[in-house]
Amino acid sequence: MTQLTRRHVLAGAAATSAATALTPLASTPAMAAAPPVGKQNAGWYRYKVGSFEVTVVTDGSNNNALPDGYVANAQKPEINAALTADFLPPDRLVGTFNPLLVNTGSKLVALDSGLGLGMFEQSKGSVGQYHTNLQASGIDRNAVDAVVITHFHGDHINGLVGPGNTPAFPKAEVFVPAAEWAFWRDEAANKGKTPAPAQATFANVKRVFDVLGNKVTQYEGSKELVPGITSMPTPGHTPGHMAVLVASGNDKMIYQADVTAGAASVFLRNPNWHFVFDSDKTMAVETRRKFYEMAVAEKALIQGYHFTFPSRGYIEKSGSGYRLVPAPWNAAI
Amino acid sequence: MTQLTRRHVLAGAAATSAATALTPLASTPAMAAAPPVGKQNAGWYRYKVGSFEVTVVTDGSNNNALPDGYVANAQKPEINAALTADFLPPDRLVGTFNPLLVNTGSKLVALDSGLGLGMFEQSKGSVGQYHTNLQASGIDRNAVDAVVITHFHGDHINGLVGPGNTPAFPKAEVFVPAAEWAFWRDEAANKGKTPAPAQATFANVKRVFDVLGNKVTQYEGSKELVPGITSMPTPGHTPGHMAVLVASGNDKMIYQADVTAGAASVFLRNPNWHFVFDSDKTMAVETRRKFYEMAVAEKALIQGYHFTFPSRGYIEKSGSGYRLVPAPWNAAI
Repeated sequence: MTQLTRRHVLAGAAATSAATALTPLASTPAMAAAPPVGKQNAGWYRYKVGSFEVTVVTDGSNNNALPDGYVANAQKPEINAALTADFLPPDRLVGTFNPLLVNTGSKLVALDSGLGLGMFEQSKGSVGQYHTNLQASGIDRNAVDAVVITHFHGDHINGLVGPGNTPAFPKAEVFVPAAEWAFWRDEAANKGKTPAPAQATFANVKRVFDVLGNKVTQYEGSKELVPGITSMPTPGHTPGHMAVLVASGNDKMIYQADVTAGAASVFLRNPNWHFVFDSDKTMAVETRRKFYEMAVAEKALIQGYHFTFPSRGYIEKSGSGYRLVPAPWNAAI
Repeated sequence: MTQLTRRHVLAGAAATSAATALTPLASTPAMAAAPPVGKQNAGWYRYKVGSFEVTVVTDGSNNNALPDGYVANAQKPEINAALTADFLPPDRLVGTFNPLLVNTGSKLVALDSGLGLGMFEQSKGSVGQYHTNLQASGIDRNAVDAVVITHFHGDHINGLVGPGNTPAFPKAEVFVPAAEWAFWRDEAANKGKTPAPAQATFANVKRVFDVLGNKVTQYEGSKELVPGITSMPTPGHTPGHMAVLVASGNDKMIYQADVTAGAASVFLRNPNWHFVFDSDKTMAVETRRKFYEMAVAEKALIQGYHFTFPSRGYIEKSGSGYRLVPAPWNAAI
C-alpha cells in the first residue's frame, strides 16, 4: 500500500536532488526540445448572463509589503492568520484588479476600468494589463458605448485615461456616482474625512476627469443606467460607492465592486474588520453584512473587482463571516 | 441608507424588464457598436515550480445527466445536496479535464493527455480542446519528450492518439504504471473486478496503445521518471493509479490525477463516498484520506485533473472531509 506521509513527500524531494545530481541526463547538459515558453495567458474570461455577454478583463495583480494599520481594528498577527488561512503569503498584500465589460446586445458597457500605473508603479510588469487584455479578448475600446464607474479610487478610474493623456473610451458616456463627484471634487471640505492613504484620490480625480473635459453623467440611487444595468447604492468604502446589478431575462449577476476590497477574501471572512481605505468604516461593515446576506439568500452570482481572476462565484456563510465559492470555469461560453 | 434586501434585487430585475420595454433605446432597434465576440479564451495557465515551467491545459468541460448509482453509498438527494453546497446544478454532472505540461529545463513532460472524444461524444464542442489549447499555449506536441500516464481511464489516455490515428506525441517516451498495464491488458481475468461503466476501458486501452505500437515504459512504486518528476502510488481509483510529485529546488507541486475524480469537489467534501468509477472503493477512500492528510500537513500545492480550471489550490479540512482553496491566478508567470 502507498506510504503518503510527510516523510514520503520530503524523501521524494530529497531523492529528486540526489537523482538530479547523478543522472546521466544532468552530466550531459541536455536541453528540452522546447525551451520554456515564458509567457502567461491573456487574463480574460467570457460568459453569458441571459442574452448579455460578460467579459472579465484582468488588469493583473501585484504583491507589496502589508502596510502598518491595514486593518484598523485587527493586529498584524490576526491579519497574518487570516492570510495564512487563505494560503496567501503573510506580511504581504496580493492585490488583484478585475474590471468587466457587458455587451447587452444594444450597448457595450465597461464596468470600471483598469488601474493604470499611477498609484502602483512599484510593481508594474504584472499590473497595467487591462487594455492589452481587453484587446486580446476581441473588444475594441473605441467601440465601448458607456462606462459605469462605481467609485473614484484610482484603481477603478485610472484606466479611463488612454495613451497620450486622451480618453481611453472616446465614444463612451461615462456614468459616475453623484455622491462621488460631489465628495472627491471638494478636497478642502472632505480631506479631513478621508483616510490618510486615500487622500491622494482628490488630486488623482482631478487629473483623470480633466482628461475627459469633466464630461460625465452623474447618477444616484438605484437607477437603471443602461437597459439591464442598474446601480445598487453600497456606501462605506467610499461615500458614493455603488455595486451594479446586471440582469437579462431570468438571469442576473451582481458586480460588487469594492464591497470587500484589498485582500478581499480576508475581509469576506472577517466582514467586521475596518479596512484602511474604507471612508466610513462602520457603514462599510453594515453594507458588507447586508450585501452578503442578500447574496447568500439570493444564491447570486457575484463578481468582485478584487477577487482572484476570473473573480466570480457564490457567497456562503462561514463562521462569523463569509467565503467565496468560485464558479466553475467553462471552456465554452 | 441602502436597501439591499431580496425584494430590492427582485425589484431591480423587475424594473429592468419594465425599463427595457419602455426605453427609447429598445423601441429603435439599436445595436452595440461591437457585436458580441462569442469566443471563449483559450484554457491554459502557466506558473513556475522552482525553475520548472508548468502549464495547465484544459481539455474543456461537459455537462451530462447525473447517472443512477453515481455514488454507491449515497442517494441522489444527498448527492444533490452536496452539488448544491458547491453551487453546482443538481441532477447534473459537470466534468472538467485538466492535463499538465512540465518543462524541467532538460525535458518537456506531459502529465496525462486530453480525453479525445471517444467516451464523451455526447457533449463535444466543449471538450476535446486539449491539443488546440496546448498549441495556443505555445507548446508543440512534437517537442514533448515524455508523457507520464497516471492511469488508464479514457479521459487520461485518449489524447495520446493524434490526427489520423497516429501518436500525438511522436518523439515522447510514454511512461505507464506497470500495474495498469497488467490489469487493463487482461480483460478475461479482470473484467469481473471492474465497475460496469468502466468496463469499456479494456477495449479502449487496446485501441490507444495499438496506435503507439504498444511502445511504453512501465514504471512502479515511488520512482523518479524524469529528474524532478516522481510517481506516488495512490491505488483505489484504479489498481495502479499514480499521483505525481513535481519538485524543483525547495518548491513542489503534487498532481493528484484522480485521487478525487468526477465531481471532484463533491468527493473532496465527502471522501468516504464510493465513486462508481473507483475500482476498489475501500482502497480509494483510504488513499483519499492519506493523500489529503498529507496535503493538509504539507500545505502542498495540489493540481487536480478534475478540479475546475486552472485546477490548482490547497487542501483544508472541512467538516468530515476537505475543501480546495483555489490558488490565486497570477497575471505574470
